[in-house]
Amino acid sequence: MRVSRFMWMLGIAFVVVMSFCTPAYAAMEDDISALADVQKYNRAIHIMAMLLVGFGFLMVFVKKYGRSAVTATYLLVSVALPLYFLKASLHILGGAEAAIDRVILAEFAAASLLICAGAALGRLKMIQYILLGLLFVPCYAFNEWLVLDGGLGLITKGNFVDTGGSIVIHAFGALFGLGVIMTMTTKKEFETEIESDETSDRFSLLGSMVLWVFWPSFCGALVAPADVPATAVNVILALCGSTLATYFASVTLRKKFSIADIANAALAGGVAIGSTCDKVGPVAAFTIGILAGALSTFSFAVIQPKLEGLLKKADTCGVLHLHGLPGLLGGVAALFLVEDISKVSQAKGIIVTILIAIATGFVVGKMLAAAGRRSEPYTDAEEIGD
Amino acid sequence: MRVSRFMWMLGIAFVVVMSFCTPAYAAMEDDISALADVQKYNRAIHIMAMLLVGFGFLMVFVKKYGRSAVTATYLLVSVALPLYFLKASLHILGGAEAAIDRVILAEFAAASLLICAGAALGRLKMIQYILLGLLFVPCYAFNEWLVLDGGLGLITKGNFVDTGGSIVIHAFGALFGLGVIMTMTTKKEFETEIESDETSDRFSLLGSMVLWVFWPSFCGALVAPADVPATAVNVILALCGSTLATYFASVTLRKKFSIADIANAALAGGVAIGSTCDKVGPVAAFTIGILAGALSTFSFAVIQPKLEGLLKKADTCGVLHLHGLPGLLGGVAALFLVEDISKVSQAKGIIVTILIAIATGFVVGKMLAAAGRRSEPYTDAEEIGD
Amino acid sequence: MRVSRFMWMLGIAFVVVMSFCTPAYAAMEDDISALADVQKYNRAIHIMAMLLVGFGFLMVFVKKYGRSAVTATYLLVSVALPLYFLKASLHILGGAEAAIDRVILAEFAAASLLICAGAALGRLKMIQYILLGLLFVPCYAFNEWLVLDGGLGLITKGNFVDTGGSIVIHAFGALFGLGVIMTMTTKKEFETEIESDETSDRFSLLGSMVLWVFWPSFCGALVAPADVPATAVNVILALCGSTLATYFASVTLRKKFSIADIANAALAGGVAIGSTCDKVGPVAAFTIGILAGALSTFSFAVIQPKLEGLLKKADTCGVLHLHGLPGLLGGVAALFLVEDISKVSQAKGIIVTILIAIATGFVVGKMLAAAGRRSEPYTDAEEIGD
Repeated sequence: MRVSRFMWMLGIAFVVVMSFCTPAYAAMEDDISALADVQKYNRAIHIMAMLLVGFGFLMVFVKKYGRSAVTATYLLVSVALPLYFLKASLHILGGAEAAIDRVILAEFAAASLLICAGAALGRLKMIQYILLGLLFVPCYAFNEWLVLDGGLGLITKGNFVDTGGSIVIHAFGALFGLGVIMTMTTKKEFETEIESDETSDRFSLLGSMVLWVFWPSFCGALVAPADVPATAVNVILALCGSTLATYFASVTLRKKFSIADIANAALAGGVAIGSTCDKVGPVAAFTIGILAGALSTFSFAVIQPKLEGLLKKADTCGVLHLHGLPGLLGGVAALFLVEDISKVSQAKGIIVTILIAIATGFVVGKMLAAAGRRSEPYTDAEEIGD
Repeated sequence: MRVSRFMWMLGIAFVVVMSFCTPAYAAMEDDISALADVQKYNRAIHIMAMLLVGFGFLMVFVKKYGRSAVTATYLLVSVALPLYFLKASLHILGGAEAAIDRVILAEFAAASLLICAGAALGRLKMIQYILLGLLFVPCYAFNEWLVLDGGLGLITKGNFVDTGGSIVIHAFGALFGLGVIMTMTTKKEFETEIESDETSDRFSLLGSMVLWVFWPSFCGALVAPADVPATAVNVILALCGSTLATYFASVTLRKKFSIADIANAALAGGVAIGSTCDKVGPVAAFTIGILAGALSTFSFAVIQPKLEGLLKKADTCGVLHLHGLPGLLGGVAALFLVEDISKVSQAKGIIVTILIAIATGFVVGKMLAAAGRRSEPYTDAEEIGD
Repeated sequence: MRVSRFMWMLGIAFVVVMSFCTPAYAAMEDDISALADVQKYNRAIHIMAMLLVGFGFLMVFVKKYGRSAVTATYLLVSVALPLYFLKASLHILGGAEAAIDRVILAEFAAASLLICAGAALGRLKMIQYILLGLLFVPCYAFNEWLVLDGGLGLITKGNFVDTGGSIVIHAFGALFGLGVIMTMTTKKEFETEIESDETSDRFSLLGSMVLWVFWPSFCGALVAPADVPATAVNVILALCGSTLATYFASVTLRKKFSIADIANAALAGGVAIGSTCDKVGPVAAFTIGILAGALSTFSFAVIQPKLEGLLKKADTCGVLHLHGLPGLLGGVAALFLVEDISKVSQAKGIIVTILIAIATGFVVGKMLAAAGRRSEPYTDAEEIGD
């Protein structure tokens, strides 16, 4: 029939046109996808600045241990990244396929490790930091797998809300660190006051600001391109909120404000907004930031002296107060602020993380003690020559 | 007729093919647009590094006030950004729709505020910096609306050429700051020399370099992707020009060169290229940079001592010399270098900005004085504990 | 015939559809290409951070010359970039067409110049650094043209493998610097020990970390978007490898580790991975890093004292040990690790670079000596006022 011949012709026309368009279309889709990966790469570089310059120099506030703190940062990062890459490429405990996703997940592991090391800063020899890195990464990856990747079927993959890692990065690292110092610090160390001076303070503020600046890239690292701007607004607002709250809380609680509060608690908004950074609106983000800054400052000013007096243990950088409590605040806030959240999964993820962090941290502390344990904090002069 | 049937068939073929291609095409356009926004986000992060690490540490040159300067930077930024977001989301005095554009415009406001605060650095208590931020942002936004957004019908939107903010950001901030110090500084303060030392100088140079490095992202923040490379070349050449000119001018005018000149006037090229950064060629850009560096150094070395002696007022960071005069130079240069410029609009924009900045700055200075005023500069010890 | 009419109609349908699709397609291709250029721009900004903050502050380790080192960095960069732009826009000795490629190539020239200046740091007056910049860039561009651009027909363009510049940037700069110090340093200078202190060390570590962080953008600056992630993984692994190897080698060779080793040799992986950064797998990259870190530390700890004792010449920053030998290691590694490499071209490129660097460096050293030569290192106080 003539009509069927028309249909044939139409079909041929369609195939001819599509055979020109489709490969061009596919090539452009590949180009766009490659560009999106390079944008993730940019955020990965921002996170690297946070890991080395940010965390590294934030810890330089210990006047007599500044160069050691920076060296330790170098070593911890250099242990964590290759080890996590290895894990991911062997497909142990899940793991991303794309190279750039692996880089970012490895950086998250390194961030959590640096937080953990902050608790024990100055109580470990260099070789013990390296050992800590080797032991920490598997524990971190195990928790990540359980909570985020559906490991053991405990929590359905995708049900635990923690985009920027309030729980799996910050709270995990801080609580693991507390586990470690249970063994690695002593009453005498606790009594040795940590000295800082004008210059170590300024370096510490530099580290703090580098963390602040790049925090939106940390939280938004793996977010889809279209969600990056809104995530950035939330993270920036949370940080502004915590910075302001820190100043007012510090002045209120201490009469004169403390530079350590400013350098640390100002970042608590970034810690706490992690879980919900791509899921709440700007007002909620600013509020979370204010609460986190106030909580963190209160924790530094009031809880820290009481707790340390009670336990006779020293948390050098106060990671419980900057990463632990604000991280938990962020994870819990998701329960109330995120629509359609699986409350059971969220609660399970938080509790599992707390338990694994403390338990594995405690065991790792015991293992580290096998490589030496001392009653006084180390100083730069002990391991650094010239 | 057979022909009309052919036409029908062709039409159907066309519709069928297009119905496959168009959604795919639209989806890719959305993807591309999202990627362009993420690129703006990257520049927004660069600007954030300038605000905190750049401006913050540039001001650390005051030896006894370094930690306060950094804290004040934190607070000023944390006040300005949410306040500007609020203004933009309430659509008061115009404002961008896209979230990432709002972030960048808010950062511009914060930059101008930090410049302004540089004039009064060390003369305000922390609470006064916060107050300054709250009062500055509405004045800044009002001027921005008048000059850039066609407010009151004064200048047709788009007619005032100031892409990188030589006038609306730099000159506005500096002149507002001069308005503030008319009230807030005293003869005695003017006579107290500002002390710096080797370490505060090195921190200041660090801040300076961070500003230099990211300046192309400041000027090119809102420029279309295709114009970013040429804009970057111009800004880099202007900065190279001002850096070289600063060195030669400083040696010529002072015998030995001054580190404060290097740390500050080297940036004058970035200030002055702002207005025309996406509109001139590389030779013009390099020339603007050289002129700006020479002008700024001359202003620091010759005008500053005379002017301060005359007025008995102290401009702590010399913002008139780095941001004020070079900013005006940049805005005026547009009159001569940009083709098809509306000279009336350009001149109006400059004059309006000057008047509003000085007037509102003066009033805000009076208001700040209500929260306290003292005859000696503050030091770190007064507000910082431990 | 009816069939031929069908063919006509089909053809018309095809042309109509394509005339809608093709311009839209072309516009999107332009958009994508502009986005890719902005991504290069981002890497160019990262490199700028390395040039100023990275190299600048790494050289602040000389306590009495820190502010001069930073000023010299400013001047060197400000001479090199415009001069290289000028060369490129005049199409002398080849050169890229795209503006952003020119920026990156100019930054590479500036990096090599800074490496070279590191050898003579503290032995030159400011005006001599500027002169050095003016003389260095043509020599660098000549070698670049010979080795990478097929100049004189010596090496077929594209046959020399050196993506991240192990040879043409690092080894060239270091060997040129050695040529310069043959003339510019004296026995007496060699005997004056370089003093550093806690604070200068911390600034130096800051510079080191900034280099480390942004190194993937240096190596991947001109790489196609799709190859950026794999290149980043390689560079990061190489840096991790050299950082770990540096620590262990430093402790082994010196008993206590040296901060100068950590700040410098930790970067050797980045230097050495340059040649092959987009061509090897992660295991090879990590291995190159370990070897480079060990080689560099050995060179600092063992070769440097012997060689300087032998020659009575001072290489202030030890650029031979950080950039020279690891750079050569990287270029030679390509011979063994890259498939389908032209071994003759690779060997020729390395040898030509070595010869040109030393020869032109020696001549430039003689020319610099015409502007003054002294037997003691300079200090900040000599050229900086106040």
